[in-house]
Amino acid sequence: MSKTKVEWKPGNMLYPLPAVMVSCGSTPEEYNIITISWTGTINTNPPMVYISVRPERHSYGIIKKNMEFVINLTTEKLVKAADFNGVKSGKDINKFEESFLTPIPARKINTVIIGESPVNIECKVTQIIPLGSHDMFIAEVVGIDVDEKYIDPEKNTLRLDKANLIAYSHGFYYLLGKRLGKFGYSVMKHPR
Amino acid sequence: MSKTKVEWKPGNMLYPLPAVMVSCGSTPEEYNIITISWTGTINTNPPMVYISVRPERHSYGIIKKNMEFVINLTTEKLVKAADFNGVKSGKDINKFEESFLTPIPARKINTVIIGESPVNIECKVTQIIPLGSHDMFIAEVVGIDVDEKYIDPEKNTLRLDKANLIAYSHGFYYLLGKRLGKFGYSVMKHPR
Repeated sequence: MSKTKVEWKPGNMLYPLPAVMVSCGSTPEEYNIITISWTGTINTNPPMVYISVRPERHSYGIIKKNMEFVINLTTEKLVKAADFNGVKSGKDINKFEESFLTPIPARKINTVIIGESPVNIECKVTQIIPLGSHDMFIAEVVGIDVDEKYIDPEKNTLRLDKANLIAYSHGFYYLLGKRLGKFGYSVMKHPR
Repeated sequence: MSKTKVEWKPGNMLYPLPAVMVSCGSTPEEYNIITISWTGTINTNPPMVYISVRPERHSYGIIKKNMEFVINLTTEKLVKAADFNGVKSGKDINKFEESFLTPIPARKINTVIIGESPVNIECKVTQIIPLGSHDMFIAEVVGIDVDEKYIDPEKNTLRLDKANLIAYSHGFYYLLGKRLGKFGYSVMKHPR
């Protein structure tokens, strides 16, 4: 171990993070996508998540008006679309069309999910907290859609490990790599 | 693409996430570590993060009393310690000793960082929001310590890509794998 620690400027250094595509909008004209890494799970029961969005972003007003959005998980196949929808603005283009993604009506809320995403997390906003550059949208998970090809029909479990999910770390997108252990493996007698 | 979407029970399905070791406590008797995946960046400027903690956890009372904690990033070498400190309780054991980790005084707050971690994010709690099973601790990043071996001395940049960071996804720890692109690469003329 190196005990030599250097002081660094306070900043955003918590990694790796997800890089999800958030879909929103209640009408076809309004449908939009924004890619977000400032997102996470904040509560287990009830299931709750957040996204932090700059007020300047096109999706900000759409989500604030409708108080609903969908978190669409991203995969190796979707990384270019995710990057594109993070740097472009829906003010200028139709993001579903430009990034070749399919809007499908959500089940529980009045917006669309991204058909190509393996998991879609439908959310209702319960609180908006302004923090500075970003506002945090706190939301409850009200529905989840999964691509049936990731469901193990015998065990009725979700094989998210088969989905080739990506992470975002300090400016780069990565595929998840080597599996290092299962939660709790350090105290199991026969860990797998 | 499979357009066949199946409804799934609302739950915690946002992955991959970080799996960080949070250190806390203002005295050696109080020093503790809790591993947390319900964490993320919530604001860019000023830099802010959150951790969500169950009130039953030993660290909960320590953090609430001191209103300070450190997010220590985790690596392939630290994954077993991280898992251990997620399933064991500091009520019963000294986690620094049992997981062979080195407490080093933080720079900006009155607690300790984990010496073996490549990046330590020192945080001051500004708000606690009860959500149900968990309370969300909203915090400002007041200091960052980095292991000097990840600093490129010529460019004075942090090479976090060299740190072998791990992610947590749906019950498993993973090493970050293949690099898929740099932020903005989808619109660059000559992407690397």
